[in-house]
Amino acid sequence: MSQHPAGPFARLPEPPYYAVIFTSRRTAGESEDYGHSASELLELARRQPGFLGVESVRDCERVGITVSYWRDEDSIAAWKQLAVHLVAQRAGRERWYEHYEVRVARVERAYSSASSPRVGL
Amino acid sequence: MSQHPAGPFARLPEPPYYAVIFTSRRTAGESEDYGHSASELLELARRQPGFLGVESVRDCERVGITVSYWRDEDSIAAWKQLAVHLVAQRAGRERWYEHYEVRVARVERAYSSASSPRVGL
Repeated sequence: MSQHPAGPFARLPEPPYYAVIFTSRRTAGESEDYGHSASELLELARRQPGFLGVESVRDCERVGITVSYWRDEDSIAAWKQLAVHLVAQRAGRERWYEHYEVRVARVERAYSSASSPRVGL
Repeated sequence: MSQHPAGPFARLPEPPYYAVIFTSRRTAGESEDYGHSASELLELARRQPGFLGVESVRDCERVGITVSYWRDEDSIAAWKQLAVHLVAQRAGRERWYEHYEVRVARVERAYSSASSPRVGL
């Protein structure tokens, strides 16, 4: 993994593991509240048992994809319960997002440009 | 699905199906060549048997996440073979991306803000 760059890429173990794919469109307008709570949620996720990593991108049109990676389904269930509580406290999610889609998936294989250039997609 | 918005969200069938999660950082500098070939690849994907949908976001720091959804592993294998050929013709991928990671995953469950508000993440 010496060619693995720091930054936006999660360092993950060999599959299998689980991915939560969260695609969303933010509501219009700036929100300090959102930024703060999103960071807080992420920090909380990082401290959860079974958390493996996260990759997250949001574009100029307020559309984002965040993929968080977990050891197993139990880790995801525990994290989701915690997140729902925190979001309920902040009275947040339905105010922050116009729409979101969540897909929970089992990662079966993985490769990178470092391990096999030219075969992405 | 009446509350499902058009735009960045893929309309997908009930799980199970497969996801190819492609996280990348583009090389610096504008590239018409890249934009053209990326669109061409996407159009090609849409016409493949087993293609279900795609969601794609790239931020201002050239980091992108594209998740394409497929009926089964065979569809992904066929598509990958085609994509490798096309990219080889265009002499592209290693010029377009500083780094990328690919994870192939089986989606086991899915929900949205329309079907279950407040439980995202």
